Amino acid sequence: MQLGLIGLGRMGGNMRERLRAAGHEVVGFDQNLAVSDASSLADLAEKLATPRVVWTMVPSGKITEDTIDALAEVLSPGDVIIDGGNSKFTDDAPRAERLAKKGIKYMDVGVSGGVWGKTNGYALMVGGDAETVAHCMPIFEALKPAGEFGFAHAGGPGAGHYAKMVHNGIEYGLMHAYAEGYEILEASELVENVPAVIKSWREGSVVKSWLLDLLDRALDEDPKLAGLKGYADDTGEGRWTVDEAVRLAVPAHVISASLFARFASRQDDSPAMKAVAALRNQFGGHAVKR
Amino acid sequence: MQLGLIGLGRMGGNMRERLRAAGHEVVGFDQNLAVSDASSLADLAEKLATPRVVWTMVPSGKITEDTIDALAEVLSPGDVIIDGGNSKFTDDAPRAERLAKKGIKYMDVGVSGGVWGKTNGYALMVGGDAETVAHCMPIFEALKPAGEFGFAHAGGPGAGHYAKMVHNGIEYGLMHAYAEGYEILEASELVENVPAVIKSWREGSVVKSWLLDLLDRALDEDPKLAGLKGYADDTGEGRWTVDEAVRLAVPAHVISASLFARFASRQDDSPAMKAVAALRNQFGGHAVKR
Amino acid sequence: MQLGLIGLGRMGGNMRERLRAAGHEVVGFDQNLAVSDASSLADLAEKLATPRVVWTMVPSGKITEDTIDALAEVLSPGDVIIDGGNSKFTDDAPRAERLAKKGIKYMDVGVSGGVWGKTNGYALMVGGDAETVAHCMPIFEALKPAGEFGFAHAGGPGAGHYAKMVHNGIEYGLMHAYAEGYEILEASELVENVPAVIKSWREGSVVKSWLLDLLDRALDEDPKLAGLKGYADDTGEGRWTVDEAVRLAVPAHVISASLFARFASRQDDSPAMKAVAALRNQFGGHAVKR
Amino acid sequence: MQLGLIGLGRMGGNMRERLRAAGHEVVGFDQNLAVSDASSLADLAEKLATPRVVWTMVPSGKITEDTIDALAEVLSPGDVIIDGGNSKFTDDAPRAERLAKKGIKYMDVGVSGGVWGKTNGYALMVGGDAETVAHCMPIFEALKPAGEFGFAHAGGPGAGHYAKMVHNGIEYGLMHAYAEGYEILEASELVENVPAVIKSWREGSVVKSWLLDLLDRALDEDPKLAGLKGYADDTGEGRWTVDEAVRLAVPAHVISASLFARFASRQDDSPAMKAVAALRNQFGGHAVKR
Repeated sequence: MQLGLIGLGRMGGNMRERLRAAGHEVVGFDQNLAVSDASSLADLAEKLATPRVVWTMVPSGKITEDTIDALAEVLSPGDVIIDGGNSKFTDDAPRAERLAKKGIKYMDVGVSGGVWGKTNGYALMVGGDAETVAHCMPIFEALKPAGEFGFAHAGGPGAGHYAKMVHNGIEYGLMHAYAEGYEILEASELVENVPAVIKSWREGSVVKSWLLDLLDRALDEDPKLAGLKGYADDTGEGRWTVDEAVRLAVPAHVISASLFARFASRQDDSPAMKAVAALRNQFGGHAVKR
Repeated sequence: MQLGLIGLGRMGGNMRERLRAAGHEVVGFDQNLAVSDASSLADLAEKLATPRVVWTMVPSGKITEDTIDALAEVLSPGDVIIDGGNSKFTDDAPRAERLAKKGIKYMDVGVSGGVWGKTNGYALMVGGDAETVAHCMPIFEALKPAGEFGFAHAGGPGAGHYAKMVHNGIEYGLMHAYAEGYEILEASELVENVPAVIKSWREGSVVKSWLLDLLDRALDEDPKLAGLKGYADDTGEGRWTVDEAVRLAVPAHVISASLFARFASRQDDSPAMKAVAALRNQFGGHAVKR
Repeated sequence: MQLGLIGLGRMGGNMRERLRAAGHEVVGFDQNLAVSDASSLADLAEKLATPRVVWTMVPSGKITEDTIDALAEVLSPGDVIIDGGNSKFTDDAPRAERLAKKGIKYMDVGVSGGVWGKTNGYALMVGGDAETVAHCMPIFEALKPAGEFGFAHAGGPGAGHYAKMVHNGIEYGLMHAYAEGYEILEASELVENVPAVIKSWREGSVVKSWLLDLLDRALDEDPKLAGLKGYADDTGEGRWTVDEAVRLAVPAHVISASLFARFASRQDDSPAMKAVAALRNQFGGHAVKR
Repeated sequence: MQLGLIGLGRMGGNMRERLRAAGHEVVGFDQNLAVSDASSLADLAEKLATPRVVWTMVPSGKITEDTIDALAEVLSPGDVIIDGGNSKFTDDAPRAERLAKKGIKYMDVGVSGGVWGKTNGYALMVGGDAETVAHCMPIFEALKPAGEFGFAHAGGPGAGHYAKMVHNGIEYGLMHAYAEGYEILEASELVENVPAVIKSWREGSVVKSWLLDLLDRALDEDPKLAGLKGYADDTGEGRWTVDEAVRLAVPAHVISASLFARFASRQDDSPAMKAVAALRNQFGGHAVKR
């Protein structure tokens, strides 16, 4: 089927390729006109037959809001907008209502898979009504991996982004569990070949996973990870997951600890630890570093 | 080749089958003589040609120590003992020394794979000297999964059990990351079909793993896990991992939180939370439950 | 000076007494007219000379918002409203703006001290402009403890509630640190007299504090805390503190862990631990509780 | 009464002064003979009338073991050795047995109070038998603060050091709770005067404590703690507390998190966070720092 796709960066560009390889007609638009199939949103709308389906794949937050609002100006009643970016789930219901007033349907889709999705397919978590989901199913079929997994209709508006948010929260926890184990192995006097141990777990073990495969891959390239700094950004979903855990009274020690470790990794110095050092010095005369 | 195998429970029994299917000759011994191929350790020793290789697969702690000591009585210089149970890594070096005095070689092997190992193969992490490892390689080849993964010579005595300990520590963290995400999804008002979301992650997503496959399997059987109590034992390796993190000054927030959550799951009431309730009542007159 | 005081519950009632004992004229209003000095907000306004100062001490959230809005209807330009409840700091700036349009000044005050404040005085953290703070200083002087501590002008609108929020977040962490230590002592085979140990720390030790005094007091009443259930509510500020830590990228392992422990204390069963139990059963055939 | 005191450093030196001020006769010994009252352990023994009481106040571990063993050589049956250092509680029972064979009695005493103890008195937690405790009570009375608090007979051998260990574990948690709150206040856009807020809590608030007094003191000296590095050592008791929590299956999220934060404060770079960075780069092409 025909699809408009806005945002042709790392994710959107790969998705266009995967969709075209599956035989779909994709009209892409990007601010970078060099990679764009349309010269403007208006041009994009003109190039698509109604009822149109347009997928946005742009950074979450104001850019997505502005893009969708501008898009709504050039679309027609009966058209569908799908937001596949990492929007916060609380944006979806008001957005869906706003678009519904113009007769435009809305779905939110959480998309997982990173740079590997082009080849392996993307896991898709969809929020929206059943009819609109069914209408767009050929697109989802092309983007998801072959086989029975990789797609869920999670619920109404917001459920797709919510599921993706929790997915990423879990991802933080998984990564940090491996990371702590890796650090213990590295610190151990007994284990002589850490990368070999990691590699051994890739089959037969209880901890085998795609993330473990990637850790092995990273260690193949750099067995001590010597070329990397222990510094990690976070991109919103981890924070929202902790906020949701707090709102819903779910004990989320692991996911929050993973998030906090990323915060700490970005601090040049820790105000909290200054306070601890100050206290130790005050009561015990313990030496401090200045 | 020929192998003596002591302990024919859930793990040992399956391993005997996998080894035999690969063409090896296994003489098994178990306290339960109904499943045993030998009538005693002495009989086991008699049934094996020297130099013998005998693998113990019995519960860690005193039982393993006693078994190995009794075994050493009936073996000869040049024989090999392999401990594949979940022994604590600190037991291995003294054990290896004790056996070396009798001319018996020793290897410790961490074995992962659970009840699925019979079919899928077991991930093996080995501690010992290169020569002994090479000598026993046919056994390892038969037990490990087909393909390039699932085996590591981790280091000298203790390194195998150490690697398995860290493996299990990571496993605690991974399981708890999924568990927290699952609880948030269950608590959410937006996500209508939690099992479908979990299932969607099995392909294409960043969090895909064998543990996730198993969570999906459990939800297929019981979509709300309604038949289970939120109660989990721990079997030593998680505790040892935290102890090691503490010894080595490795921040292990995630693995320790996973372990502590298991502790809490087994408490009928929490003395710590009684203290918190008492304090809130004392300073604020907050209501308490009696 | 003269003060209107709305909300004469546990906190407000005590504050009225303390203020009157200091020679101030307090006109109290409460929905419970039996304890009220005024029959309505309008009556309260009438009973106070302009420029009026009215302090609200009602539950945070909608009740506070509604009370302040209703109060603004009966006050005059130049009057002052002080919110001493546990409002969320984000409510303060919009509230101050709304009131400023009517010429009414606004201060937010975090009040700590619980049921002991009547006797000991309350710690007060104030948000507002310097002029209004100065105008109300006699009230603050009467409410705060004697001596140099117990009062801070923390910043502009919201700063008072913010400081109180962090105060409570710290309080969660302090209480839980004592609680964990208490539980370890209780579990120990060596320590025979836990209450005596707690009592010994009240002077001379590094951990001496008012909360410790209260824990000792609770143990005097019930040496095993046998009459209490390990169940603790939370009242908003702990959650907001964690949300703020997340927003500001502050690693807050301790405060969040204290909050999560309260969440867990209120669960009959843990969905997360059901998932852990399900996984252990799936991969290892480990027994589960049903 | 008469007391031998071995180790005249920061703690021991102050204790000698406090004891003498209370009218006791103290014969001190230190490797630094300039501050020593005796020229050797033998000389110390000679200067004391039997039955002697000798208190060791030297660094925990091998130095304490060696000191006590050497001391036992010069003492007589009926004498008493008191270890007031931060020995691990597991050392006490074997030590007591070893000494008992020579007829020497043993007590372990946890001593809290830091550099302030000379003036304020020390909190003392004692492990030993009731008769020996009673015999030495005049010493304890002189060292402890005036008033009803500051002394506990916690139990038999080891109970004193155990109680002190848990005391220090709690101390880690308390310090970190304040530290996290301090960091949030510092990061806040609303709170303009963080030291004033901290100071206000010293009276009337629920979080008032001696540690808070010291934090205020530190902020008086350096309002931004600008002269300090966020780096904190740990001295054993925190680690032992976590190990005990693990052994006793006590969920100790807060104390362990405080300990782990100290570990992290001492790392130039975090191997775990390198692994996280590597993984993010692998799956998402996320930028890494090199």
